[in-house]
Amino acid sequence: MSATAEPIRLGVLGLGRAFTLMLPTFLGDPRVRLVAAYDPHPGARAAFETTFGGVALGDEQSVCDHPDVEWVYLATPHQMHARHVQLAAERGKHVLVEKPMALSMADADTMVEVCARAGTRLIVGHSHSFNAPVLLAHELIASGRYGAVRMVHALQYTDFLYRPRRPEELDTARGGGVVFSQAAHQVDIVRLLAGGETRTVRALMGRWDASRPTEGAYSALLQFANGAFASISYNGYGFYDSDTQMDGVGEMGTAKARDAHQATRARLAAATSEAAEVDLKAARNFGGTAFTMPTLRGPDAAQHFGPVIVSCDLADLRLTPTGVEVVSQAGIEFVPIKLPEVPRAEVIDELWRVARDGALPAHGGEWSRATLEVCLAMLKSEASGTDIPLERQVAAPS
Amino acid sequence: MSATAEPIRLGVLGLGRAFTLMLPTFLGDPRVRLVAAYDPHPGARAAFETTFGGVALGDEQSVCDHPDVEWVYLATPHQMHARHVQLAAERGKHVLVEKPMALSMADADTMVEVCARAGTRLIVGHSHSFNAPVLLAHELIASGRYGAVRMVHALQYTDFLYRPRRPEELDTARGGGVVFSQAAHQVDIVRLLAGGETRTVRALMGRWDASRPTEGAYSALLQFANGAFASISYNGYGFYDSDTQMDGVGEMGTAKARDAHQATRARLAAATSEAAEVDLKAARNFGGTAFTMPTLRGPDAAQHFGPVIVSCDLADLRLTPTGVEVVSQAGIEFVPIKLPEVPRAEVIDELWRVARDGALPAHGGEWSRATLEVCLAMLKSEASGTDIPLERQVAAPS
Ligand SMILES: NC(=O)c1ccc[n+]([C@@H]2O[C@H](COP(=O)([O-])OP(=O)(O)OC[C@H]3O[C@@H](n4cnc5c(N)ncnc54)[C@H](O)[C@@H]3O)[C@@H](O)[C@H]2O)c1
Ligand SMILES: NC(=O)c1ccc[n+]([C@@H]2O[C@H](COP(=O)([O-])OP(=O)(O)OC[C@H]3O[C@@H](n4cnc5c(N)ncnc54)[C@H](O)[C@@H]3O)[C@@H](O)[C@H]2O)c1
Repeated sequence: MSATAEPIRLGVLGLGRAFTLMLPTFLGDPRVRLVAAYDPHPGARAAFETTFGGVALGDEQSVCDHPDVEWVYLATPHQMHARHVQLAAERGKHVLVEKPMALSMADADTMVEVCARAGTRLIVGHSHSFNAPVLLAHELIASGRYGAVRMVHALQYTDFLYRPRRPEELDTARGGGVVFSQAAHQVDIVRLLAGGETRTVRALMGRWDASRPTEGAYSALLQFANGAFASISYNGYGFYDSDTQMDGVGEMGTAKARDAHQATRARLAAATSEAAEVDLKAARNFGGTAFTMPTLRGPDAAQHFGPVIVSCDLADLRLTPTGVEVVSQAGIEFVPIKLPEVPRAEVIDELWRVARDGALPAHGGEWSRATLEVCLAMLKSEASGTDIPLERQVAAPS
Repeated sequence: MSATAEPIRLGVLGLGRAFTLMLPTFLGDPRVRLVAAYDPHPGARAAFETTFGGVALGDEQSVCDHPDVEWVYLATPHQMHARHVQLAAERGKHVLVEKPMALSMADADTMVEVCARAGTRLIVGHSHSFNAPVLLAHELIASGRYGAVRMVHALQYTDFLYRPRRPEELDTARGGGVVFSQAAHQVDIVRLLAGGETRTVRALMGRWDASRPTEGAYSALLQFANGAFASISYNGYGFYDSDTQMDGVGEMGTAKARDAHQATRARLAAATSEAAEVDLKAARNFGGTAFTMPTLRGPDAAQHFGPVIVSCDLADLRLTPTGVEVVSQAGIEFVPIKLPEVPRAEVIDELWRVARDGALPAHGGEWSRATLEVCLAMLKSEASGTDIPLERQVAAPS
């Protein structure tokens, strides 16, 4: 690992929705420089060259081969993550790969192994467990000041199922549904706050819209090795918006319209075929026909993933978009976060620590494989009607 | 069942905390008249005669025998409910018995049987499933306007474990802990909204304070015969107060201080022995040394039992202390309740319908036995680490 303070040179595979959400970060954070990218969408490739002055290449290999690329940011569809990590690692490139890490434990194992063999680093993110309030809560817990964590409660009601989707995003067998895409965030957060080592999972799923035949909702119970337990619930069919419990701040850290979920459903109603829906999704992505460049200004609030309450022996910690409310016998104390200078700067913080300071990833392969194991167990639990024991768990980083 | 419009003449067993909470109802609702009572506490007996002009008798039998008593309101400790229902029914008296109905299915069966044999009515209440917003949500669901119920989420963070307690209230084997006392409310609400027929229960429990060795917290998953599921969570060690999510209105329907939970713990710290704690509890009850008569005025808001969200196919219903927020594709519509004229008038509404209009109880023996079955299954699930199937469930009344 070099000790230079030069910006980290990124290659990118996949310039779609996830990349679009990372734009403010990549544009605003001087610690990274985007040098090369590949996406089959010509519009995205063109926009990449214009926006970043990097080079749009003709395939994935070329990005991984490119001599200027140090790290590859992988924002391709879930099912490609394993193959793309392998491509990069075999070329000696470190990887930042979007959540969910993969769709099977076998793929996650491969990803960990190829990186170990190549001596390259693997970070899984962005995920919402990078959010500053989550990290602050984790720090407060690690301080020991509030005693043991006993119970975590996490909730999220969104319009997830009615955002425009690729066909595989609505097919669980191909990685569709809220467990792969959304529990990946929620479980990652809850594991980080509850110690990381999940022992058992019991989950129930909702598949309520036959026209979008994947799970759009779940409730689950998690038991942890340290005796803590968690209750997590997600409803991606939400008319109700749980961001109203988060000061009206949306997942992206900005003020959210009260009718945002209704608008999402209305927009989708215009897409009357699978192909039209795919186009609708692509249109709003980077370089798409309906794309608008994000305004670059420091965020007013952190990104978040809905209401989370952590109960410790001596305090309850409630995460908010601007900090952590600590409620103890002494009363209510609000511990503000240091607002990230650009959205998702926390991802670049970790990337920098790993790439430039030689630290080990907090959201590394083993950690994220354990989150995937919990997500897979949720699906298994629903199918079997039983608790699923877990075997690949690791402790939260300290 | 007589068709007179005369006030219902009540005899009371147990003039403690539950009775004290019903005082505003009994004092303010002209449809009931309290004619006789028994409680071993002399102070409570004296206060009963002064306040209600009724007669304080020397034992339970005398209350049940008293010719003026039509219905017996039983607010004695849980473990006595079965015996006291039997006493009343054998004397031809109808019974309104506090939640939880009983501590075992055998006792619940006895209660149902003795009343059936005697031809007397049995209502289990007050419980918070009588609250006007719960009844309104139930009505809205029953209208069919919003399609099927799919998912219910209920949450409650209170100071339950640190309110002054009798020793048996801290001993699960004798009916202590939040499952018997608090799940009795939460499960009753959730069953009413999700159709009533619970199929399986999985629950986890928190027992985090060795000095108060009963469960003070739980999270559970319930599956229903109609395919709906529910996630319910309760934390009676709460520093955090979930009433902050209910417009700052407390369980009793009145504005709640933000430091109420802290004050509860501070007060308890003064009671340094079991006996002192028993005295502390009794002192604030009717006729106790620290008792103050409630001011009689119509409530500003309904009583409630924490945040509840019911997701239907076409809307999410969020219960508030003043109504139900219906969030659908049409936007957010607030459906206000008709505010009860006295707190808990909803209990007297049902009592009146049964006693004077010949209706069947909505919160009758079979209904409430099914709620008890769920609560007992929660404890069993935690002990066995498995889902518990249920067999004594009944559908919600329509
Ligand atoms: N962290 C977050 O907030 C977040 C948000 C959205 C998506 N994601 C994750 O990002 C990943 C992508 O999802 P998305 O919603 O951005 O999908 P998307 O369809 O919007 O974007 C995927 C992009 O990958 C491109 N692509 C397809 N095959 C490729 C290949 N072989 N090489 C390079 N590019 C290729 C597509 O053309 C498309 O532009 C998923 O794993 C998803 O879970 C994360
Ligand atoms: N619905 C509610 O909101 C609510 C609130 C509190 C309690 N409760 C229920 O009420 C019941 C009583 O609990 P509590 O908190 O009032 O307890 P408590 O100790 O405050 O009151 C019980 C009263 O019963 C009296 N008693 C004891 N033995 C008796 C007997 N043989 N005959 C007549 N009276 C007798 C006691 O002296 C005491 O005054 C429990 O089942 C509890 O779950 C319901």
